[in-house]
Amino acid sequence: MLQRTSDMLKPGSTIGILGGGQLGRMLSVAASRLGYKTHIYEPGANPPAADVAHACTTASYDDHAALAAFAASVDVITYEFENVPTAALDLLEAARPIRPNRRALAISQDRMLEKDFLTGLGLTCAPYAAVNTLADLEAAIARIGTPAILKTTRLGYDGKGQVRIMALAEAPAALAAMNGAPAVLEGFVSFSHEVSVIAARGLDGSVAAYDPGENVHKDGILSTTTIPARLTPAQRSDAVLLAARILNALDYVGVMGVELFVTPQGLLVNEIAPRVHNSGHWTQNGCAVDQFEQHVRAVVGLPLGDGARHSDVVMENLIGDDVDRIPAILKERHAALHLYGKAEARPGRKMGHVNRVRPKV
Amino acid sequence: MLQRTSDMLKPGSTIGILGGGQLGRMLSVAASRLGYKTHIYEPGANPPAADVAHACTTASYDDHAALAAFAASVDVITYEFENVPTAALDLLEAARPIRPNRRALAISQDRMLEKDFLTGLGLTCAPYAAVNTLADLEAAIARIGTPAILKTTRLGYDGKGQVRIMALAEAPAALAAMNGAPAVLEGFVSFSHEVSVIAARGLDGSVAAYDPGENVHKDGILSTTTIPARLTPAQRSDAVLLAARILNALDYVGVMGVELFVTPQGLLVNEIAPRVHNSGHWTQNGCAVDQFEQHVRAVVGLPLGDGARHSDVVMENLIGDDVDRIPAILKERHAALHLYGKAEARPGRKMGHVNRVRPKV
Repeated sequence: MLQRTSDMLKPGSTIGILGGGQLGRMLSVAASRLGYKTHIYEPGANPPAADVAHACTTASYDDHAALAAFAASVDVITYEFENVPTAALDLLEAARPIRPNRRALAISQDRMLEKDFLTGLGLTCAPYAAVNTLADLEAAIARIGTPAILKTTRLGYDGKGQVRIMALAEAPAALAAMNGAPAVLEGFVSFSHEVSVIAARGLDGSVAAYDPGENVHKDGILSTTTIPARLTPAQRSDAVLLAARILNALDYVGVMGVELFVTPQGLLVNEIAPRVHNSGHWTQNGCAVDQFEQHVRAVVGLPLGDGARHSDVVMENLIGDDVDRIPAILKERHAALHLYGKAEARPGRKMGHVNRVRPKV
Repeated sequence: MLQRTSDMLKPGSTIGILGGGQLGRMLSVAASRLGYKTHIYEPGANPPAADVAHACTTASYDDHAALAAFAASVDVITYEFENVPTAALDLLEAARPIRPNRRALAISQDRMLEKDFLTGLGLTCAPYAAVNTLADLEAAIARIGTPAILKTTRLGYDGKGQVRIMALAEAPAALAAMNGAPAVLEGFVSFSHEVSVIAARGLDGSVAAYDPGENVHKDGILSTTTIPARLTPAQRSDAVLLAARILNALDYVGVMGVELFVTPQGLLVNEIAPRVHNSGHWTQNGCAVDQFEQHVRAVVGLPLGDGARHSDVVMENLIGDDVDRIPAILKERHAALHLYGKAEARPGRKMGHVNRVRPKV
């Protein structure tokens, strides 16, 4: 595919962003750095992104008049989270391009579609099976074994909508916890660590990836990402090629997060996120072009940055009362603090992150 | 001086910024990163800073109702340029603290006050003399010699309001160019290069300085800043101590730019700017805490970052039709582009800058 000059939105154009959380906030700052304006669409009041955006619409995804006015005021539409209702997307897409495209969204909104898509590309996932009934679940447990984890196919993130199953006898309770929603059973895989690749694909079809980061979760929420990850050169190369295969198969435009398990048998794809990703926040202080700018570049049709890192980084999420440590972090050498402007620190709530920068080894 | 807890503005507070240009824009982004909101006050329409600010007032500095409403809506006031009218400052200061303080502003608004202040601290400036009449100017030329440069004492920057004098006979024309404004004659000094120190002083009286950068000007406008500057360890230490002496003498709170000439006889102070400074833009990609965040920290009463750099940087200003080179810069490895969102590229207009990041040597 050749990039046409007409595809590039000129600086001064407006990027519409669905969702006004911290990802929208940091996308908006990156857009400003390249001379673009942003317009946030967010149902919740006083979203973090509104503090650094040119405009903000506070309206629900059912408000078709507000959606139409929003679409008319922007030149392209992107999003910071993947669970935008289909009807809203239909209305928006009729007016303006949505990048990344609808197919990427649809796949990432549904764990079964996602796993079928990934395995269809020849990539490896943990063993999985669709579960709608107790019979499905018992058959799946028989095939996959325990421990296993039952997840709703849609919504749910950071450990929500998930039940661990240690024995067949737990099947009825686990299924009941799904509240009748379609689910997928995933087998546990024996992995040494989790890494993620933050990769981008431009409007011209070019692909650029950042160095993989190594992720540690606490209570189902990302806690730290360390760059570089512990990977052999071959694994590093595999990880990036695998991400590129996903992006190309989707004719994707924008940044994607690809979570991988490192196992003795190779890399397994855990999940993909069609947006900037928490495990890519380190790029803000490790690269000349961070993931937020990379996404903006893709969405407006600019050439991608090459993603090379100039420094090593350990990113730590500040969750809930981690904010009590901010005074100490402010005094740390080489610690770059990023707060999201959220008034109230609740347990499990992402309040900010800190990038600790070290010379590249 | 001890810092009192009551001096610290909590995240979520609003910083009022006088001036909506690129410095206000980058201050606003830095404020957001620490969880603060900003309110811009700017006479011109559609200021660059408004795209990334919580609020923007478009009104003149004569509009006392607008100034009062602005002051009432913010918790502290800072500024991105030093030529705010005195009456406006009087009104604002009655309502909210202004940081850096009025004395720093008054001194930097008047070249004679500035030079008298600096030499009063025991620092060295180029030879200078106040000029109001032709007799003053001729006497000053006789004492200082030529070449020399005649400048209005107030306003004027980036080469405006300045006339070079090569011979006594040019005195009448040079004086006429001042349009009756009070002026100062400055002798030329023989210097090998210019450096600047970006230093900050916190509300608690602590001082932190970034590594000095080496500046190259073109047509009287900063073109590049290179870090590290060519300085001996002794000169580097002198430069930082000298900046600290200035900050302490002014009981200063915030970031200051101090321009120095490097001469065989030592460091000469060229001028000071009581604000974030163009020659400090490199800190955005060379330090965990950049000059904009450092200024915000000082103004809200947070501890200063230590200013250590993790990478070497060459900052290049993009002026006027330098914007034509943006497509090439976007493709450069390790080049971080910062555009100001200005619609029209006019000759001499600062449109953005690029920080080229290199491993620290």
